[in-house]
Amino acid sequence: MVSTNVVGILGGMGPAAGADFVRLFVQACAQQMRARGEPVRDQSFPEHWLAQVPVPDRTGALASAEQGAHQPLEPMLQALGRLAALGSRAVAIACNTAHAWHGSLQARFPQVELLHMARETAQQLAAQGATEVALMATEGTYRVRLYEEALAEAGLGCHVPLADERQTIMRGIFEGVKAGNLPLAERCFSEVALRLAERHGPVTIIMGCTEVPLGLQGSAAVAGLRLVDPAQVLAEALARRAYGA
Amino acid sequence: MVSTNVVGILGGMGPAAGADFVRLFVQACAQQMRARGEPVRDQSFPEHWLAQVPVPDRTGALASAEQGAHQPLEPMLQALGRLAALGSRAVAIACNTAHAWHGSLQARFPQVELLHMARETAQQLAAQGATEVALMATEGTYRVRLYEEALAEAGLGCHVPLADERQTIMRGIFEGVKAGNLPLAERCFSEVALRLAERHGPVTIIMGCTEVPLGLQGSAAVAGLRLVDPAQVLAEALARRAYGA
Repeated sequence: MVSTNVVGILGGMGPAAGADFVRLFVQACAQQMRARGEPVRDQSFPEHWLAQVPVPDRTGALASAEQGAHQPLEPMLQALGRLAALGSRAVAIACNTAHAWHGSLQARFPQVELLHMARETAQQLAAQGATEVALMATEGTYRVRLYEEALAEAGLGCHVPLADERQTIMRGIFEGVKAGNLPLAERCFSEVALRLAERHGPVTIIMGCTEVPLGLQGSAAVAGLRLVDPAQVLAEALARRAYGA
Repeated sequence: MVSTNVVGILGGMGPAAGADFVRLFVQACAQQMRARGEPVRDQSFPEHWLAQVPVPDRTGALASAEQGAHQPLEPMLQALGRLAALGSRAVAIACNTAHAWHGSLQARFPQVELLHMARETAQQLAAQGATEVALMATEGTYRVRLYEEALAEAGLGCHVPLADERQTIMRGIFEGVKAGNLPLAERCFSEVALRLAERHGPVTIIMGCTEVPLGLQGSAAVAGLRLVDPAQVLAEALARRAYGA
């Protein structure tokens, strides 16, 4: 019998990305069992809880100066407290931009290990020998330099898109994935990914917003590019915590 | 601003099906917003919680007479109690066979509306004018006549597979989906679906185990058949409760 820890997922930002994160986590758990030579069966998965709660838009709050920045924090604190009360040893946040509040959330619940999506991704890329990457993310994520700092700590350089390309990414996120228009999302994201590859060569492109993989999944236009999904990296990290690795 | 109710999902049976149920629920919520002429945005989704807890195998417990039948009930009661404590007004169980304990679970938490997957499906099929259907399910679900009774209440007849076909379904569920071998699952489920269609003509086939759609999704072999996914029907019913419909 496999001994496991209870873990939590803080989602709702957006809800489709939260649901997809659970799928990635379940796959990562099955992979843990296979790596241990254990049969994959329902009862060997760790207990895990997904909280999908309404949270004010993260990029909007980060853009509206001091008075707006607390707004996403309150519902996230409440949901994280409930995940902790349910026994979660570790929690993953299924939203890149929300990591702007990672420090405040972690400080309030020191008994829970709150994983950090950008740091997990930077460490994995560094271990694979990468030296520079390109980043597709929200304006909020660029504003707080979430990936730039995590990548620099791991010794990696980071290319960011031009202003108009950032707008195209935001359009793909909000008018595309979040509004349920996936063909629009695919067009927006593919265009920017191809431009980054053209400008910076064969660097790995970080899909640094959980909505981006949802729009790029299965896109033939970007089939030749090296894309990394931080949500997948984070799901694997959470599965390792669940199995005590 | 849309006013919504908190709802819960009781999953882990198996975990991949639970994750997929959240995906179906999120899609059904977006459909609710569109039907109301509301824009689809993160903050308009209802708060929802997914509990994925280890639960002893349901079919195994139902087959092992009285002493085994309580085993799945205890962890389900505990998880349902926690979903209720989180404020869930309605809860869906993302497993058909687990509905053998629906009455015991509902009796213990009368303050929560515990939806019934088979009854929701039977009512929808009756409303669409169906008079008879065929059922693909686990041995446990056949044993407790979960769908036969719900369908009879709604005035529908139910064809069930032969003994060897039932074994093929169980193989697709356990050696296929639950063990991560999707090609095997697709072969098993397609074979039985085609045999049912050959024997009973163009009746609707109920995919009455949450693992079956995961194995049949995208199967070209069954493209011409009329398949209904009770998990989708249940997800739509839960979304209606979340939006107070």
